Amino acid sequence: MRTVRTVAELRALLLPDRRAGRRIGLVPTMGALHDGHLSLLRRAAAETEVVVLSLFVNPTQFDEASDLAAYPRDEAADAALAEHAGCTVLFAPSVHEVYPDGFCTIVTVDGPLTGTLEGAHRGAEHFQGVATVVTKLLNMVGPDVAFFGQKDAQQALVIRRLVRDLDIPARIEVCPTVREADGLARSSRNVRLHGEDRDRALALRAALRAAEDAVAGGERDAAAVRDAARAAMTPFSVDPEYLAVVDPDTLVPRTAIDGDTLVAVAARVGEVRLIDNTLIPSPR
Amino acid sequence: MRTVRTVAELRALLLPDRRAGRRIGLVPTMGALHDGHLSLLRRAAAETEVVVLSLFVNPTQFDEASDLAAYPRDEAADAALAEHAGCTVLFAPSVHEVYPDGFCTIVTVDGPLTGTLEGAHRGAEHFQGVATVVTKLLNMVGPDVAFFGQKDAQQALVIRRLVRDLDIPARIEVCPTVREADGLARSSRNVRLHGEDRDRALALRAALRAAEDAVAGGERDAAAVRDAARAAMTPFSVDPEYLAVVDPDTLVPRTAIDGDTLVAVAARVGEVRLIDNTLIPSPR
Repeated sequence: MRTVRTVAELRALLLPDRRAGRRIGLVPTMGALHDGHLSLLRRAAAETEVVVLSLFVNPTQFDEASDLAAYPRDEAADAALAEHAGCTVLFAPSVHEVYPDGFCTIVTVDGPLTGTLEGAHRGAEHFQGVATVVTKLLNMVGPDVAFFGQKDAQQALVIRRLVRDLDIPARIEVCPTVREADGLARSSRNVRLHGEDRDRALALRAALRAAEDAVAGGERDAAAVRDAARAAMTPFSVDPEYLAVVDPDTLVPRTAIDGDTLVAVAARVGEVRLIDNTLIPSPR
Repeated sequence: MRTVRTVAELRALLLPDRRAGRRIGLVPTMGALHDGHLSLLRRAAAETEVVVLSLFVNPTQFDEASDLAAYPRDEAADAALAEHAGCTVLFAPSVHEVYPDGFCTIVTVDGPLTGTLEGAHRGAEHFQGVATVVTKLLNMVGPDVAFFGQKDAQQALVIRRLVRDLDIPARIEVCPTVREADGLARSSRNVRLHGEDRDRALALRAALRAAEDAVAGGERDAAAVRDAARAAMTPFSVDPEYLAVVDPDTLVPRTAIDGDTLVAVAARVGEVRLIDNTLIPSPR
């Protein structure tokens, strides 16, 4: 595995692969790698010959300075994990390399995809930050395929949309959420869950399971599904920031469960804000 | 010369060239080709092996519906001129191909580069429209070099900025303004100048020449240079929409002529809005 820190080095390193027609995969991350990231890397290694992992804690997508400051960073540990999972190029640019002096361009995915859920709660800047940095990373690397996790379902939709809208010549592949044994979705923020908060964090998965069970049990009213999900969080003393039953492509709220349905939840557990979701196939 | 109308066709056509390492040039136009465009094509043909001309009247960069409706369109004539000037691929997509249903992504170059001159007079949407469509065209074609005219000096700065900021792997080359024998800058809108308006249109070039002459004559006060330029327009009964003496890289107004200086002018002549500019080298 090679580690590079500038766009110029990265392009020079990838040029022979590109010329030779070798397929390039990109796994964009903010580091603090966990099994979710490693599953993306393994998928990339299975599908492409050159696997680039980008490691960049993007300041523009954090709406809280404390969250940015607390975001875990350990490049040496990440590099070892990444190499073991099949990464061939680690791209770890500085903030100045990504946002040089005078930087002033913003990519905005407008409309309902970004105005709801995470966009409504973290502010419009969050997805502008995500859209801009992902556009940049895709242009820096020029991958054939880029891999994202279903855990950030809304982010994946936003990225698919901008890639289509800006004609970026990369395919976006969204991979299943990886969970701990007890069902907690893997997240870099999980290391910040201590003591009983680690147990309380199971409230999110409990809500999603309750929604799945309600639909499996024949419930077709979206409000009732939502109520069942919400009730499942009560024993954990966790209140959702949002708990939404929506169309998985448009994020428009469902009234009836009459097609594939995304149930998405966000909640603060102690100091840590967590999100999770489940995709319930159409019961028809 | 091949004509293609979809991104998929375009990419399939260019793939063998790209794989073979042949250099690809792009000249983005809104059609109604004139000698200015043809000079860009000839430059592209001299520098690259595959010359793509895009022909797309981009609705999102027009701030006036009447200007969009009146914009001259003649694809057959354009195709003949383009082929003769060295174009090898004519890319003429439909509006729906460029902006399919659900399109909702906007590229914004923020700050002083877009807040002044054309941006101040045509509204923020103008350069958002330009930045978005140019990002798309660069991603559709994937050129090694893209060629733009110095006549649209501010547009060229905005495009250089977004290409750098979004890490688009293309070089931007800005080529000199081509003029009629009497000095009028070539523009697709010139065909709409009739009768005495064609003569009155020389007011813009007269203003720029007066500015050049003032600096050549030793004037170093920017306000005095501007006044001299403005006075030169009076005999034509043409008022400038703006007439600005600015830093050519930042567009910040100059107070003294103590470096390279851009003098830029916009004026409405009859029904037609015209722009022009001159780059005056530092007198030091």
